[in-house]
Amino acid sequence: MEQQIPYKIYLDETELPEAWYNMRADMAEKPAPLLNPGTHQPLTAQELDGIFCEELVKQELNETDAWIPIPQEIRDFYKMYRPSPLVRAYCLEKQLDTPAKIYYKFEGNNTSGSHKLNSAIAQAYYAKQQGLKGVTTETGAGQWGTALSMACSYFGLECRVYMVKVSYEQKPFRREVMRVYGASVVPSPSDTTEVGRKILAEHPGTGGSLGCAISEAVEVAVRNPGYRYVLGSVLNQVLLHQSVIGLETKAALDKYGVKPDVIIGCAGGGSNLGGLIAPFMGEKLRGEADYQIIAVEPASCPSFTRGKFAYDFCDTGMICPLAKMYTLGSGFIPSPNHAGGLRFHGMSSTLSQLYHDGYMTAVSVEQTKVFEAAEQFARVEGILPAPESSHAIRVAIDEALKCKETGEAKTIVFGLTGTGYFDMVAYEKFHDGQMTDFIPTDEELQASFDRLPKVDA
Amino acid sequence: MEQQIPYKIYLDETELPEAWYNMRADMAEKPAPLLNPGTHQPLTAQELDGIFCEELVKQELNETDAWIPIPQEIRDFYKMYRPSPLVRAYCLEKQLDTPAKIYYKFEGNNTSGSHKLNSAIAQAYYAKQQGLKGVTTETGAGQWGTALSMACSYFGLECRVYMVKVSYEQKPFRREVMRVYGASVVPSPSDTTEVGRKILAEHPGTGGSLGCAISEAVEVAVRNPGYRYVLGSVLNQVLLHQSVIGLETKAALDKYGVKPDVIIGCAGGGSNLGGLIAPFMGEKLRGEADYQIIAVEPASCPSFTRGKFAYDFCDTGMICPLAKMYTLGSGFIPSPNHAGGLRFHGMSSTLSQLYHDGYMTAVSVEQTKVFEAAEQFARVEGILPAPESSHAIRVAIDEALKCKETGEAKTIVFGLTGTGYFDMVAYEKFHDGQMTDFIPTDEELQASFDRLPKVDA
Repeated sequence: MEQQIPYKIYLDETELPEAWYNMRADMAEKPAPLLNPGTHQPLTAQELDGIFCEELVKQELNETDAWIPIPQEIRDFYKMYRPSPLVRAYCLEKQLDTPAKIYYKFEGNNTSGSHKLNSAIAQAYYAKQQGLKGVTTETGAGQWGTALSMACSYFGLECRVYMVKVSYEQKPFRREVMRVYGASVVPSPSDTTEVGRKILAEHPGTGGSLGCAISEAVEVAVRNPGYRYVLGSVLNQVLLHQSVIGLETKAALDKYGVKPDVIIGCAGGGSNLGGLIAPFMGEKLRGEADYQIIAVEPASCPSFTRGKFAYDFCDTGMICPLAKMYTLGSGFIPSPNHAGGLRFHGMSSTLSQLYHDGYMTAVSVEQTKVFEAAEQFARVEGILPAPESSHAIRVAIDEALKCKETGEAKTIVFGLTGTGYFDMVAYEKFHDGQMTDFIPTDEELQASFDRLPKVDA
Repeated sequence: MEQQIPYKIYLDETELPEAWYNMRADMAEKPAPLLNPGTHQPLTAQELDGIFCEELVKQELNETDAWIPIPQEIRDFYKMYRPSPLVRAYCLEKQLDTPAKIYYKFEGNNTSGSHKLNSAIAQAYYAKQQGLKGVTTETGAGQWGTALSMACSYFGLECRVYMVKVSYEQKPFRREVMRVYGASVVPSPSDTTEVGRKILAEHPGTGGSLGCAISEAVEVAVRNPGYRYVLGSVLNQVLLHQSVIGLETKAALDKYGVKPDVIIGCAGGGSNLGGLIAPFMGEKLRGEADYQIIAVEPASCPSFTRGKFAYDFCDTGMICPLAKMYTLGSGFIPSPNHAGGLRFHGMSSTLSQLYHDGYMTAVSVEQTKVFEAAEQFARVEGILPAPESSHAIRVAIDEALKCKETGEAKTIVFGLTGTGYFDMVAYEKFHDGQMTDFIPTDEELQASFDRLPKVDA
């Protein structure tokens, strides 16, 4: 007989992971290196040191060490909100009348409201260690900016956030939370940077994009001594820090002898997905176990399912390194009717390589279906989910309903990355029947692909 | 040597209380009974059954049973977000450089964002058991309405919320969350009720008040078969349900052999304070232990510190039962520049009696000082607190700073009732230096007291 599993599996503070897990160490095919956008040669640590903190550059380039110890100061901060609960979705299972067993790892129980804090505190720590004055970054939906503001406030670092203009205007409360934590928030594109002024001149009235905000934040970091740029997704270092999600998930499941069949995560740049799946993917890479791993992305920004696996810029201003990844082209901007995050044109190089090599699958979902799932989930499980997280809910529900048809009692684990308190405008649109779906045409994507940089690699 | 206390003390689900604790059973002086507003005679169960659910009326009138078992269905729901964490505020202690040991019981880790869910789910459960179609209620800042919407959605009950008009307009996102959970939300005063139309005729353009919204919700419940009225504070039944907060707090402290010296809670109608202090007050009433218990209220709505201990209406429309309590008069409406909740003119009868009998003290604080404390707390402890909860933070910090002066290592426990995600307008005002304090004059209060009903009791 199955051991009684509680609604929430909490680990003890002593069970908080002591090291992050670096998937790349176990990958036979390593992700392709970042390239210098001018020379197309792999970037050296020295070149990267001008943009990123030194210790983070080491982590970015480290393909050999499977385990990187988590410094005590970061673990102490983690203890304020971690280990996060792994929840058994008994109420959802009952409502779906499915034999499937559904679990979700809930990362929204902290003021930033999402998993982004896991990497923000690590990046702020290393910036402080290096004696920097402050950091710059971009934010779209606002979760990363909020998380970084909290982290910088904790370590007494200055924090300058370039926020995609359309989000800045639609989400004044997000901006206000960042101000509570002492950050300065600038709507992007802005006239505070050269690249911002250029974009404004070319596209007056633009609502901005993540790629554009990245360009501005990088420019400011590079030009101001004592500042570095930090990024909340896509990078190897971010996936490394986020592995704490997966490590805790696995530890909690192991406690009850549960082995998942399906692992589902939403994917924008890959920070949550890469973190959630890390230890499971490790077992898969080492041939110790097998899992079905599903990345879920918006149909309006379908990098995995419709993108090209190619070298591309991470930013719109084309001043950032080139990364080999599934990309829609650095000029791609999702339709403004797309709600929430997951709007990055590219994808983590590590996840891109794993997807390319067949270690995971991907599906894209339309946002009205996502919000249906969000509301269904909220009503029975209580938590009001972020639109991003709800992509994973959608597919978890779909998988559970398949189990109902087949009678299979699969164990499904998904990442509930955050809460939707700042997304009520989108919920309101959904309610009032004003939410629409938007799927880019093949022609639009092709036009974007045509502008990909030519790299011999 | 002191045992190492973790950042967060989580109880196991098996340690979730099995019964609520009813302070009245241990009170030598019982709280005065509710009176029929027409006859001034104590209300019978039969009379109350027309307004409230039957089982809740029994709980309301029960002065003898110290323990009321929590039904399994409610415990199952509790498990989705309880036991809630008791947090050791190490970071705040360090920042204040105080020898005091500070703990807070955090009730914001659920979508309603506050402790209100503890009673909402109980009241919805009993309404469902009775076979009712739905319930009506009022909400001010929106926490109670959100909690009740979630609870009704869970049990498939209709939920009609009269929301104080000024909050309805200032907090569209709160309203939207309630809609996600399927509630219908009406700005009060409205033309949907007789009392609403009367108030609108007398005060056209009024922003409404809690007392006025109560009148409307009661009228609708009484006039529609299959509906009852539910209330999120003030009542004995609510304090009973909220005792789960204090019971968990005490169990968590007991686990580490910690005995608090000072217990601090914010007080509007008394739901959080009454719940937090319940088991500690029980020990005090039985002469088993002593604690310093402090109620904190806004200087703009100072029922305990400047109110009269007298019979008064719970609502503005004067259709509700009379309760003996500390009151500012049922016509008292706090200044519109007062942010957040804690704006009820009266106070729980039980807490009023305990305060009258010297079992607890009370202080009032001005809102600019409250927001200072809120921001200070947020930056070191991470959580963005609700303005209501921040009243308790303010006094906890003040007490900890006193300890710094005297060198005493007191143990301070306070209730962190919820999160401030929907209060960013107030935070913004605070930031921009536009927040002011408002203290009613003696003359204003006297004019309000002059309108108290004449009751011989």
